[in-house]
This record gives sequence, structure tokens and C-alpha cells, in this order.
Amino acid sequence: MKDFKVIEVKRSIFEDNDKDAAKLRDELKQEKTFLLNLMSSPGAGKTTTLRQTISRLKDEMNIGVMEADIDSDVDAATIVETGARAIQIHTGGMCHLDADMTRQGIREFGTTDLDLVVLENVGNLVCPAEFDTGSVKNAMILSVPEGDDKPLKYPLMFSICDVVLINKCDTLSVFDDFSKEAVEERIKKLNPNAKVIFVSAKTGEGFDEWCDWLRKEVADWTK
Amino acid sequence: MKDFKVIEVKRSIFEDNDKDAAKLRDELKQEKTFLLNLMSSPGAGKTTTLRQTISRLKDEMNIGVMEADIDSDVDAATIVETGARAIQIHTGGMCHLDADMTRQGIREFGTTDLDLVVLENVGNLVCPAEFDTGSVKNAMILSVPEGDDKPLKYPLMFSICDVVLINKCDTLSVFDDFSKEAVEERIKKLNPNAKVIFVSAKTGEGFDEWCDWLRKEVADWTK
Repeated sequence: MKDFKVIEVKRSIFEDNDKDAAKLRDELKQEKTFLLNLMSSPGAGKTTTLRQTISRLKDEMNIGVMEADIDSDVDAATIVETGARAIQIHTGGMCHLDADMTRQGIREFGTTDLDLVVLENVGNLVCPAEFDTGSVKNAMILSVPEGDDKPLKYPLMFSICDVVLINKCDTLSVFDDFSKEAVEERIKKLNPNAKVIFVSAKTGEGFDEWCDWLRKEVADWTK
Repeated sequence: MKDFKVIEVKRSIFEDNDKDAAKLRDELKQEKTFLLNLMSSPGAGKTTTLRQTISRLKDEMNIGVMEADIDSDVDAATIVETGARAIQIHTGGMCHLDADMTRQGIREFGTTDLDLVVLENVGNLVCPAEFDTGSVKNAMILSVPEGDDKPLKYPLMFSICDVVLINKCDTLSVFDDFSKEAVEERIKKLNPNAKVIFVSAKTGEGFDEWCDWLRKEVADWTK
């Protein structure tokens, strides 16, 4: 049985990581920089959501985006088009970011003049949920085509997020077995404090509410 | 730096796993059981694809499904409705299956009378690609709503699959920025031998070709 060896190593990583994450959060508080950890499955619309968000908030605050991907630079290139600063982090095959990797990104990026930094985590509903990145808040996107049963299958991810955006709501007529009521009920059962917002990054639906949430969180952290 | 420690442990796991996987494949060959490892993002349509596949092949061969999930039994319950045998494997938080976990499932399930066993892996485009499960062939599903750029972002997954099903093709008119040509070109660049089949598990489009591929592979292995 190899289970014992694996579990020991994971535990030591988690303990170190929690300390690292708390330290990074303290540093960010001193620097008045709000770090948002944004997670989702591959293709749920993280980058499109960020583009829509940046276009609405860029005149009010300085925004930077750290794009984490196993490979490719396509997302960073897309974000730079919005006028926001961006860097691409290649994880070298790793399926998530931990606090140490996030700090390396933050220091390389140079975030002291930024009010809001968004970390676009690797597209994955499993592993990123296990590692505190040092972010101030966790957000995730679930897209309508993925189905309303996902909170049942990936409970940890839904449990650790402060806000859940249900994206691609413009396709609800095509994916007519997706129940907004059922998904919200399943999320709230796991995480009664989670804020659930129904959006479409394509049409802009729901972005007033999402941007109000973000605006208030950034203001509270950086005041 | 914790990198060294982590990499050492991962390497030893991979080496053990490769041996385990080869051994499991030998056992399955003796028992004339074909094991297919089916992978995808959360919500790409693995279970619906399996239902459509089982309904077409169940009179020709004995089929079993092993549903791997971090939590919940919803997929196994859905598969049992088709008349195929199914078990649910709970991974206890693990983001993938390795060969040892797969063998535990195979032995618990009792597969000696089955021609085709499908392992529905955890919904994740990253970690499952790193672990040989002992399957005879690897298949993956990419769904149209996820976008045609996914081979650029998750290259390992696309590199190790023998067949890639592009699912939810009935929604191509809604997701009109998805290019069938671009996605196939990106997959072939990573993996020239991969078979790419465009399907819709909802309408049955493309399932003749997919079932022909599967029928031939099972026949070759179990003869």
C-alpha cells in the first residue's frame, strides 16, 4: 500500500502552504492589493468573464491579471488587449497553484501599484480547491453547459468559494435541463454563505451585480 | 524550496504505477476484457455518451461501467438505468485514478464475464493524463462549449488519447466561434495518430463511427 507515504507528503505540503498563504495575505494587506483567486473547469469562461469585468472597472481601479496555465499564452494575450496588465504563469505540468507559486508570480509581476489582481487558476475543479493561494477571496465560475449537478460531484470547490458565477446563462434555452433553482440550492447546502450570481460574459447579464460585489470587496480591503 | 521533495515523490509513484498498469493490462488480456479509460472536463458529457454507446452495443457484448467520482452516486445510478452493470468508485478526494485504484475497482466489480469495461475517470483534464490506469485504450471527450483552444492548454491529455470525441456538436450554431477544423488541426499536431470524431450524445450524430471504432478495438483485444 502506497497510501501512507502519499498522505504524509500531502499533509506536510498543506501545512507549509497554509502558513505561506497567510503570510502572503498579510503582505498584500500592507500593500493595499486585493487578490482574487478565480477557478473553474476548462472552458467555463474565465477569460471572457475577466474581459467583461475589466472593461467595466478599469477606470475606477488599477487591475492586473495573472494567467496560470500548464502551457500556452493565449489567455494573457487576450487580456492584454483590454488594456489591463497581464502575465502568464506556466505551471510546468502542475494542476494547481499554491501560495509559494502565487507569491513568485506576484513578485515577478510587481503588484504594489495595483488595487485588484486576479489570479486565473488552472482550469480544474479538483486540485485548486485544496490549496490556499493567499488570495483575499475565492471565486469560481460554473457554466450552464456543464450541468446543474456539479456541486454534488465537486463539493470541496463549491465549499471554499465566496462567490459562484453561473456563466453562459444566454444558453439556458439550449441546455433546458439546467435548473437555476437546483444549482443554487445545491451550492447553498454546501456553503450557505456563498453568493451566487447568474451571468453571461457574452451579453453582460448579471455583471452589474458581480461588479458591485467586487467593487465593495476591493474597497473594504484597500481602504 | 519544496520542489525537490515533491518531484521525488511523484517520480516514485509514476514508476510504480507504470509497472502496476502493465501488469493489470496483462491480466485483462488473459481474461479477454477490454478496458477503456474515458476522460474529460467536468460536464463534457461522459455519462450521456456512455448511455448512448451502451444502448447501441449492449446486444453485441457484455458491458460494465466503473464510475469514478470524488463524491456522489448520480452517474452510477444513471448508467444502471441502461441495463448495464455499474459500480461507483469514490476516490476520497483524489483527482485521478492510478492503476492500483483501477485494479481494486476491477476486482471488486468482477469483470471476468465482461467484454468491455469503461472506466469513467474523474472530470479533470490535467491529473488523469499523468497516470496510466492499465486501460487498453484512452479516450477523451471535449465538448463544443469548452472551446477549440483546449488542446493548446491541456496538451498532455490530448497527446495520450487514442481517440477524441468532440461532443455537443448539436450546439455548434450557438457556440459559433468553435472551429471544427482548428480543433482537429491542434489535436493532430500534438498527436498525429489520434482519431477525432465529431458527435452529439444528445442526437446520436457521429455514434456510428464511434461505435465502429470501439467494436473493432474490443474484437481485436478479446479474440
